[in-house]
Amino acid sequence: MELITSRNNETVKRAAALKDAAERRERGLFLLEGARLCADAANSAVQIEQAFFTESALQKHTEECKIIQSVAKRVFCVADSVALRLADTKNPQGVFCVCKTLDKTHNIDKIKYNGIYALTDGVQNPDNLGALARTAEALGADGLLLCGGCDLYNPKAMRASMGSLLRLDVFEADDAPALVRTLQSKGMRVFASVVSGDARPVQDVPKGEGCVVVIGNEGNGVSDEVRDAADERITIPMAGRAESLNAAAAAAILLWEFLK
Amino acid sequence: MELITSRNNETVKRAAALKDAAERRERGLFLLEGARLCADAANSAVQIEQAFFTESALQKHTEECKIIQSVAKRVFCVADSVALRLADTKNPQGVFCVCKTLDKTHNIDKIKYNGIYALTDGVQNPDNLGALARTAEALGADGLLLCGGCDLYNPKAMRASMGSLLRLDVFEADDAPALVRTLQSKGMRVFASVVSGDARPVQDVPKGEGCVVVIGNEGNGVSDEVRDAADERITIPMAGRAESLNAAAAAAILLWEFLK
Repeated sequence: MELITSRNNETVKRAAALKDAAERRERGLFLLEGARLCADAANSAVQIEQAFFTESALQKHTEECKIIQSVAKRVFCVADSVALRLADTKNPQGVFCVCKTLDKTHNIDKIKYNGIYALTDGVQNPDNLGALARTAEALGADGLLLCGGCDLYNPKAMRASMGSLLRLDVFEADDAPALVRTLQSKGMRVFASVVSGDARPVQDVPKGEGCVVVIGNEGNGVSDEVRDAADERITIPMAGRAESLNAAAAAAILLWEFLK
Repeated sequence: MELITSRNNETVKRAAALKDAAERRERGLFLLEGARLCADAANSAVQIEQAFFTESALQKHTEECKIIQSVAKRVFCVADSVALRLADTKNPQGVFCVCKTLDKTHNIDKIKYNGIYALTDGVQNPDNLGALARTAEALGADGLLLCGGCDLYNPKAMRASMGSLLRLDVFEADDAPALVRTLQSKGMRVFASVVSGDARPVQDVPKGEGCVVVIGNEGNGVSDEVRDAADERITIPMAGRAESLNAAAAAAILLWEFLK
C-alpha cells in the first residue's frame, strides 16, 4: 500500500478532478466515495483503478476495504486532509475509488424484451436519479434506460442510489426517440408519463410483459419526440393543489403499478 | 420600502440566523426563500414579519413581490450581497421572508377523523420531508402529522415541498405514540410501514375512511413505541436486491395505495 500525505499530490488532484462530469467523460473514469458503495463497485462489472483509504477507515470498515483491495489495481493509504480533498460529503468515511466507466453501448443488446424497464428522458437532479434507481431495483425492475440528464457516474446520484446504479442493469443511450422505436420494434410497449388529465390513469393501463415507463425531466417533462414516439401517454391522477409530483416520487408510483 | 446595503446590518444578521433550527424554535420565527414560496406563505395562515427583495427580483418577480408586500409588516430592498447572506441556495432569486411559526397545537383538533393522513415518525432528511409533503398534497391527503425529525420550517424542506408544507394541513406533535392512541380513540386506523416480510402487503390492506399511514426514520424506521401502538404493520413487497426504498419513495407508494 502506497502512502499519500499531501493533498497536492498529483494522483489525488487527478482523482478529485473527476467530480466534474466533463472530466469523467474525457478520461473515462469516475470517483466513488463510501465504504459500502466502493465495495458494491468491487462486486460489480466496474473495474477499480485506484483505491484510497484513510488509516481510520481501514480499521472501521475492514471488511469493505478488504473486498476493494482484492480487486483494485493500486491502493493508497491517505491522510485525513487528502480524504477531505477527495470527498463530496462533509464527513467522509475515508474510502474512495477511481473506476473505469463502462462502455456506453456495452450491453444494449442485453435488454430483456419481455422485461419491465424505467427510461429516464433527461432526469437532471442527481438525488432523483439515485432514488429512482434505488426504487427500480427494490421493486424488481429489469433495468434502467438512461437517456440524457444527470450522468450515471455523478457522485451524488451514486450515493442516493445506495449502490443500485452499480447493481442494476443500466443502459445508456443518447437518442431517446431512436431507442424507443428500437424497443417497440422488438415488441415492447412504451408509456410516456405526463401531467395531463387527457392521459390514461396508470392504474387503468393493461400491464404485462415488455413494458417501458418513461420518466421525464423535472422541469419540462418527457420530450415531445419521446411523447410522440410512445405507444401511450399515462398519468398519475392528482387530487390536490400541488401541480405535480417530484420525479422520483412519480417514478415510484408508476413502477409500483407496473411491478406489484 | 427601507433600503439595506450592508450584509452586516443587524436585521439581516438576525434573519440569516434563522437558518438554524434552535434559533427558529427560540424566536418562533423562520426564514423563507424564493418568490413562489414566499407568495405561498402570503396566501397561507402564516404571518410575514419582514420581506426582503433585491432590485432585480422586484423587476423579475413583480407579481409575487406585490402579493408579499401587501401582507408583510416591514419590507426591505436589499443589495445582492445581502441576498447572498440570507440565501440558502447558490443562485438566489432575491426574495426572502421572515415569518412567524404557527403555534404547534393551533389546529390539532381540526383533524378530520374520516380523512387520510401521513404521519412522519422522525423523518430526518429535509428533502424527504419536502417530497413527502408534495406527494401528500398532490394525491389529495387530508394532511400531515409531523412527529419529530426534520422541523417543519427547515428551509430545504420548504423548498423541496414546493410550498406544500405551507398549503397542507400540518399538525405537529412531540409524542407520536400518544398521538396514535388519540387518533385511534377517535376511530382512526393507524398503519405502521415497515421493511419486513411478516407485515401485510400494502395492496392487501382494506382501505376506506379514517386511515393514518406512518412513515419512519430513514435509518431506523418507525419507532418501537409507534409500531406497538399501531393497528397493523404494513409493507411494500420488494423483489430486488436493494434493502429498502428511500423514505419519500416509500411514502409515495403507500399514500398512492390509500388515496388512489
